[in-house]
Amino acid sequence: MNYQETFENAIEALRDEKRYRVFADLERIAGSFPKAIWRAENGLEREITVWCSNDYLGMGQNKSVISALTSTAEAMGAGAGGTRNISGTNHPLVQLERELADLHQKEAALVFTSGFVSNEAAISTIAKLLPDCLILSDQLNHASMIAGVRGSGVAKQVWRHNDLEHLEDLLKAAGNERAKLIVFESVYSMDGDVAPIEQIADLADKYNAMTYIDEVHAVGMYGERGAGICERDGVMDRIDVIEGTMAKAFGVMGGYITSSQAIVDAVRSYAPGFIFTTALPPSLAAAACTSIRHLKTSQIERDMQQRQAQQTKEKLAAAGLPVMPSQTHIVPVLVADPDLCKKASDMLLEKHGIYIQPINYPTVPRGTERLRITPTPLHDDGLIDGLCDALVDVWETLGLTKGTVDANCRIVAEEGRPQAALYPAAGG
Amino acid sequence: MNYQETFENAIEALRDEKRYRVFADLERIAGSFPKAIWRAENGLEREITVWCSNDYLGMGQNKSVISALTSTAEAMGAGAGGTRNISGTNHPLVQLERELADLHQKEAALVFTSGFVSNEAAISTIAKLLPDCLILSDQLNHASMIAGVRGSGVAKQVWRHNDLEHLEDLLKAAGNERAKLIVFESVYSMDGDVAPIEQIADLADKYNAMTYIDEVHAVGMYGERGAGICERDGVMDRIDVIEGTMAKAFGVMGGYITSSQAIVDAVRSYAPGFIFTTALPPSLAAAACTSIRHLKTSQIERDMQQRQAQQTKEKLAAAGLPVMPSQTHIVPVLVADPDLCKKASDMLLEKHGIYIQPINYPTVPRGTERLRITPTPLHDDGLIDGLCDALVDVWETLGLTKGTVDANCRIVAEEGRPQAALYPAAGG
Repeated sequence: MNYQETFENAIEALRDEKRYRVFADLERIAGSFPKAIWRAENGLEREITVWCSNDYLGMGQNKSVISALTSTAEAMGAGAGGTRNISGTNHPLVQLERELADLHQKEAALVFTSGFVSNEAAISTIAKLLPDCLILSDQLNHASMIAGVRGSGVAKQVWRHNDLEHLEDLLKAAGNERAKLIVFESVYSMDGDVAPIEQIADLADKYNAMTYIDEVHAVGMYGERGAGICERDGVMDRIDVIEGTMAKAFGVMGGYITSSQAIVDAVRSYAPGFIFTTALPPSLAAAACTSIRHLKTSQIERDMQQRQAQQTKEKLAAAGLPVMPSQTHIVPVLVADPDLCKKASDMLLEKHGIYIQPINYPTVPRGTERLRITPTPLHDDGLIDGLCDALVDVWETLGLTKGTVDANCRIVAEEGRPQAALYPAAGG
Repeated sequence: MNYQETFENAIEALRDEKRYRVFADLERIAGSFPKAIWRAENGLEREITVWCSNDYLGMGQNKSVISALTSTAEAMGAGAGGTRNISGTNHPLVQLERELADLHQKEAALVFTSGFVSNEAAISTIAKLLPDCLILSDQLNHASMIAGVRGSGVAKQVWRHNDLEHLEDLLKAAGNERAKLIVFESVYSMDGDVAPIEQIADLADKYNAMTYIDEVHAVGMYGERGAGICERDGVMDRIDVIEGTMAKAFGVMGGYITSSQAIVDAVRSYAPGFIFTTALPPSLAAAACTSIRHLKTSQIERDMQQRQAQQTKEKLAAAGLPVMPSQTHIVPVLVADPDLCKKASDMLLEKHGIYIQPINYPTVPRGTERLRITPTPLHDDGLIDGLCDALVDVWETLGLTKGTVDANCRIVAEEGRPQAALYPAAGG
């Protein structure tokens, strides 16, 4: 057994597949978002424009958010100093959980150190506590939800993405008596499409199933108070567990669930990934709380984000770029090849000072590699024009396919080399 | 299927077993550590002394650490804004990883959002990448390591805690050719005992096994530069993967591994719990980096911690309290009953203004419930005297057993009711 060689080969396999990832070393500039300093591997520094941030509303540089963070750190120190149970429960965290419960109009909330951990810990714990539970998981669920499903060790069935008929077939076959947990997302972040939440809730009622929704790419951005798509669609009270994050539109860090007192208390009491981990620092809890409160009443960030996302979609489509059919603020542009996707990203950064990370497998299915663009309220019309020009230059230089993208994630080509990409049937 | 009732019953089961946890709502006071404000459930506020913090050296309130945190947040904003791969790699995090690699004299380091995630993600990923891997896990390994072992899906065998003969038997039986990963801790945090690291490394060499050590309760506190027990014992270069945390002695948040370039790169590239999660905010990375650099050269915190821990052990033992035989800064006092342990903790807080959380199952085996005391450099001799008096009062009021604790975690009683507690043979 040669250990070193084994790991070297594992890395080499990624290079061969053209999906070895190189992280861009960035220094964001508070007050100048979406600008950042990029440090290239050769040591050179350059100011660039970030077009792929999940700080969707720029709240990470909101002055009141930063001020809550710094003043709390000055008053209470850097870290929490312990797990939630052993001296780590800090008052800003208690306040944050009340704020989150109020946001989603649920009895209780529980904060985790990340959205990944919240999904993994909550799904696995809830499913384990239900006798003979069957998990019904949407085919395109996020890796963290899949980790939760696997971690539970219970039976699971994958339903075709957003396919209500398939979900109903599976629910019917399981029967009304068996414990069933439907897990799905509101906004699917790599495509920008939205789940039919109300109809899923109807099916859950009909077949006596529990519902768990991931709203991480929606909280802060949809609904009158920024509680997400469930709020926008008027169905918050029909979903048993709503999971969200403070690390994207709220601009800070950490994940959470909101639900009934009993469910939150059960996860709090039984989930190892919650129990045995240091609590979120008071400074981050205070910053998140400030951001959530701000977005409960301020509409301007949401309105501007929608406007700039729409502008971006229209301009790129008008230029013949293969914009995928997104219903949300997410603007994916299809490349459908891992090597070309990386090359396009590199050229954007090096030639145009535009940073958009290539999205390759395993984040998206093979053959659907893409550039995923996330316009924020702070990407103004001038920046959008510059982005469009740069993309057109890259598409032409690399000979990428232009055209429109159909529902099967296939480019209906207008020029360039023909390319095709289909979602594989398996997943979840 | 009644979902609500199922979760209510799960909570009720914990109450029946006297291990339902209530979190103390604390507000630490930077500059006055270990003092904090405690908010009781009836709304009353009271200043108390924290005696169970994992901010072992008080670095969470170190002025240069807080200043690094606040100045970085002001310059770069609150959150990281993305995963490591998608716009979240910030320059302070890159610097932190270099600092950690240097600390442990390894080729590379990788930061996670928590120590729990670092163990879960790294152990499971390393074991999965090794063909037909066998994990050999110490019986008392932390829940996060067990999560990593389980998550890997590979075969595992549990060796009796710190038992070299048992470990050698298992290694020999597996044979030199099979891939073997030995996972263990340096300081076991609930007992304060230390692993025989050098001898474990000898066995690993003899039978061609890989070694993975968790140093979370040692980094910052042992070794000339605070790299942990491996540094103190001169065996850093003999362990393949050293895992640590920034959330305890370094006073901030987050976990990490350090290892060879190939192993770190493999975990970076293959671990879902790393790939699909938002990066640590630049402010926390800068704060952690400052703390690590400080403790690389400053010895006073380590010296004072050892002195105050020793003082505490001696004074409590002299008062007849059942101090468990710890070799480190951790001072566990045995109660050996979950209900009495909770009552002792409540009385300390309410009557004496001293906060020490009860440690019950599943954090420790049933029958070994304890108060776990962590003296820091800032718990002065007067505070130690006050603690001792308060504990004696509680022990006498509740009729708890005094005496000494033998190697089997049994109280050799001197007075009071007889009580016994043994480690169960299973675990890991």
